[in-house]
Amino acid sequence: MGILPFVAELGLIDHHCHGVLRVDSTRDEFESLLLEADGVSPLGGTFFDSAVGFAVRRWCAPLLDLPRHARVEEYLERRNSLHITEVSRTFLMASGIHTFLVDGGFQPDRLLSAEEMASLAGAVSHDVVRLEHLAERVREEVSPAEFVDAVRVALAGSGAVAAKSIAAYRTGLGLPAARPSDAEVLRAVEAWTGRLADPVVIAFLAWEALDAGLPLQFHVGYGDSDADLSLGDPLLLTPFLRATASLGVPVLLLHNYPFHRHAGYLAQVFPHVFCDLGLATHGLGHQAPRVLAEALEIVPYGKFLFSTDAFGLPELYYLGALLFRRALSDFLADGLRRDAFLEEDAHRIARLIASENAARVCRL
Amino acid sequence: MGILPFVAELGLIDHHCHGVLRVDSTRDEFESLLLEADGVSPLGGTFFDSAVGFAVRRWCAPLLDLPRHARVEEYLERRNSLHITEVSRTFLMASGIHTFLVDGGFQPDRLLSAEEMASLAGAVSHDVVRLEHLAERVREEVSPAEFVDAVRVALAGSGAVAAKSIAAYRTGLGLPAARPSDAEVLRAVEAWTGRLADPVVIAFLAWEALDAGLPLQFHVGYGDSDADLSLGDPLLLTPFLRATASLGVPVLLLHNYPFHRHAGYLAQVFPHVFCDLGLATHGLGHQAPRVLAEALEIVPYGKFLFSTDAFGLPELYYLGALLFRRALSDFLADGLRRDAFLEEDAHRIARLIASENAARVCRL
Amino acid sequence: MGILPFVAELGLIDHHCHGVLRVDSTRDEFESLLLEADGVSPLGGTFFDSAVGFAVRRWCAPLLDLPRHARVEEYLERRNSLHITEVSRTFLMASGIHTFLVDGGFQPDRLLSAEEMASLAGAVSHDVVRLEHLAERVREEVSPAEFVDAVRVALAGSGAVAAKSIAAYRTGLGLPAARPSDAEVLRAVEAWTGRLADPVVIAFLAWEALDAGLPLQFHVGYGDSDADLSLGDPLLLTPFLRATASLGVPVLLLHNYPFHRHAGYLAQVFPHVFCDLGLATHGLGHQAPRVLAEALEIVPYGKFLFSTDAFGLPELYYLGALLFRRALSDFLADGLRRDAFLEEDAHRIARLIASENAARVCRL
Repeated sequence: MGILPFVAELGLIDHHCHGVLRVDSTRDEFESLLLEADGVSPLGGTFFDSAVGFAVRRWCAPLLDLPRHARVEEYLERRNSLHITEVSRTFLMASGIHTFLVDGGFQPDRLLSAEEMASLAGAVSHDVVRLEHLAERVREEVSPAEFVDAVRVALAGSGAVAAKSIAAYRTGLGLPAARPSDAEVLRAVEAWTGRLADPVVIAFLAWEALDAGLPLQFHVGYGDSDADLSLGDPLLLTPFLRATASLGVPVLLLHNYPFHRHAGYLAQVFPHVFCDLGLATHGLGHQAPRVLAEALEIVPYGKFLFSTDAFGLPELYYLGALLFRRALSDFLADGLRRDAFLEEDAHRIARLIASENAARVCRL
Repeated sequence: MGILPFVAELGLIDHHCHGVLRVDSTRDEFESLLLEADGVSPLGGTFFDSAVGFAVRRWCAPLLDLPRHARVEEYLERRNSLHITEVSRTFLMASGIHTFLVDGGFQPDRLLSAEEMASLAGAVSHDVVRLEHLAERVREEVSPAEFVDAVRVALAGSGAVAAKSIAAYRTGLGLPAARPSDAEVLRAVEAWTGRLADPVVIAFLAWEALDAGLPLQFHVGYGDSDADLSLGDPLLLTPFLRATASLGVPVLLLHNYPFHRHAGYLAQVFPHVFCDLGLATHGLGHQAPRVLAEALEIVPYGKFLFSTDAFGLPELYYLGALLFRRALSDFLADGLRRDAFLEEDAHRIARLIASENAARVCRL
Repeated sequence: MGILPFVAELGLIDHHCHGVLRVDSTRDEFESLLLEADGVSPLGGTFFDSAVGFAVRRWCAPLLDLPRHARVEEYLERRNSLHITEVSRTFLMASGIHTFLVDGGFQPDRLLSAEEMASLAGAVSHDVVRLEHLAERVREEVSPAEFVDAVRVALAGSGAVAAKSIAAYRTGLGLPAARPSDAEVLRAVEAWTGRLADPVVIAFLAWEALDAGLPLQFHVGYGDSDADLSLGDPLLLTPFLRATASLGVPVLLLHNYPFHRHAGYLAQVFPHVFCDLGLATHGLGHQAPRVLAEALEIVPYGKFLFSTDAFGLPELYYLGALLFRRALSDFLADGLRRDAFLEEDAHRIARLIASENAARVCRL
């Protein structure tokens, strides 16, 4: 249950993450960034008593020169005694991620940008443009009549290597199969007030991203209570996926837990669909191996990617990468033990998932 | 695959069960109480050829002074040669459950009461009030206009430590997010005939239980064919959970199989939500460890509880407790083998799940 | 992780498969028959980099006198150097399947018939009548007014031992609970154009099959992108199953992945329901054992069957049988290691699943 040497040495492309926090965190802030809950409740006790909480104590403590399994108070005290930049650099460098694709569209003021992430980690970074964020900015700047064209211009000039949709949080993944007409979009934009939650506009953004040739990432499954998890089942995307298959532009299903088998199915049957385990990797702690194995049941190995979906805490990039390596290693070691494939095959599978699929899909 | 000593010795709070049968069972009755089927069918063969059936032969036979894996006929013959009270006492005492929370609202005439259970097992017991049963009794006694107040009085005077809803069996778990008004309840009560299956009344009961400060248990997932399993997916409760989070009264999701990952998610993201594996523990027999591990993937360990949901057969309390111990032991042993947490952490997780969470949540 | 001797020697009844191809396959054809995708995409790479792809290299190569894990090019070259009849005979004979139940209603011109399969494999075969195919043929031959009677005559004279419905592909599994009246069927037939996708007609066919005493197989879950997977959840069949339980004619849920736990639940609670893992067995490759174990969690062992659902490639019958044996062997070995049942029980469970359940259900 260690890590196979060739997996330990893999360079990783994190094809979907966010930035780290610019500032220190209180214990409450730290705990609530560990999980997807809004905050700790006295009813339920500390979030350090969770898979990811124990993973922090086990794996992150030694990087701050503490014994593994350090007590929570010790860990946080030590962490706060260091400069946050130092803490962030330590964990990012230790992750072995050489390329970050950063969705900078959520809470940009609190977080490092893609460029800052790269500089801190001694890595390469690229932007992922968050469609709903882009649309909300555009909407503030132009009239409804100008919206469609302004979105097209903004996407063409985004400099991003991929686009990201949070349809799951706003309308659910049941996007209409047909591309909305410009007239329908205009009507929807005219009616839009407040946060973008209009299915026509959100579907329009998804189609536009594909038209611009941008690989399109969807938040799927596991996330916070702002969304109904049942609206994040990737099977809801089936009509949209059927309608967009012929465009030949990749669609990437992020996280997917607990619908990861559904995602693997979609990635198998649709030529342009890919998936990952994202956020769930660090969230599952020492149980990540079983779920990664499930996620890899029927998906061709050329269609599964690594990502952390880490947000805010630098520990999560490190844990995402480390727990992914451990889980992938367990999967490959089990396959080798069962004589399912040769060692050279295991190496190829590992490279595909660690970076080659992402590089091909996002043309890095 | 034995049981870790500190898990073997845990005292258990069974936060949701029913009473044992007052009388002996025929083979047909015994078999149909093993599973959730209505009865044995010649098409499919004996229910002893099932996970729980083999668990009875393996684990229960020795407590009746038979060799393990005794043949079915031997087992039933031996069991019938003893007084049912003796059989019940044997299995209840051997379970290591020191506190029973008993839902006495289903088939009360056939089953021992909470008090009788406690006396038989040398344990403590508390009542769980079954909301639909309470409402049906109240409905017989008062006019529709008096119903709302009478329910409030009955709940206030129930002496129960928790309430139980079988909304899953009557209307499905898609309870409305908004609290029904008294006028809406009145109209619904006036229209109600026969068994209670009105969503307004059932939602009203759930809100009233929370108002009365009673932790609210929902039957979720696995159960008999009287319910549509798809209406028992806990994600259907999301709007209700979002609406009730601020009340600060616990909501407990029972059983959950095969939606146990959905339940773990809800318990993570909502501060007042807890879950267990209940009925599925003995139902899964020697395969319980894998499913318990799945149920514990993303739920904070302060939010998972032990229960048996045993009904009728005293064997099921013993098997529920024993198979829970084996599964929890496997989970913790695997974590220790992977160095995921310290032994003292494993002890704390075990105590939380075995009894401390239940004691805190139900204020025992 | 080898195969227990008594499992290796089991004779198998494949209660649901199709015929093998009459002709050789190009590499592209071969790859697309391995999985449920329409075809290979340059975006995602070769389908040999998948669980089933590696299983072909590992297990099928030696039967063509190649080393295990032979390279893909080597494998296909060797395969093409042999006559396809020889290749087919080799894999079919090696499968250990002594009885094939063949659904011959899909692409009958490309595939061997049930009789030809039997002759090639030195086995017994029986026909499974594909209801939608039968109905489409009948519709071409008679007027709408004659349709109902003509279907009854065709079913009575089909000589089949079971019927198969692909409702999942045409309308989804949400069949109405009530039997359609002849008048409703007439109206639906009058309105029917093109491919049969009318829920009334499809429900009528299902009821007629049961009336004719034919065990009724439903495609459930995993399949190609022609269907919405969400419409293939077996829980959608609940009202139909509740309505048909009293008829006492078996209903068999095929494949079921990733809804195999839902299927196990239905097979437990409804006396006439059975299930298998079908198509998913070879699709999961070396990961089949975990999923078979999941599928066997709560289903009584008298209600689970073996099938391959193999189609076209003779390799898939061999892999379906081999990977089923390995998975069943792992399941039983794990049970024996945990002392869950006796060796004689393990033998009985194995015989039930391998052939006795199918023989009883289909009266072979």
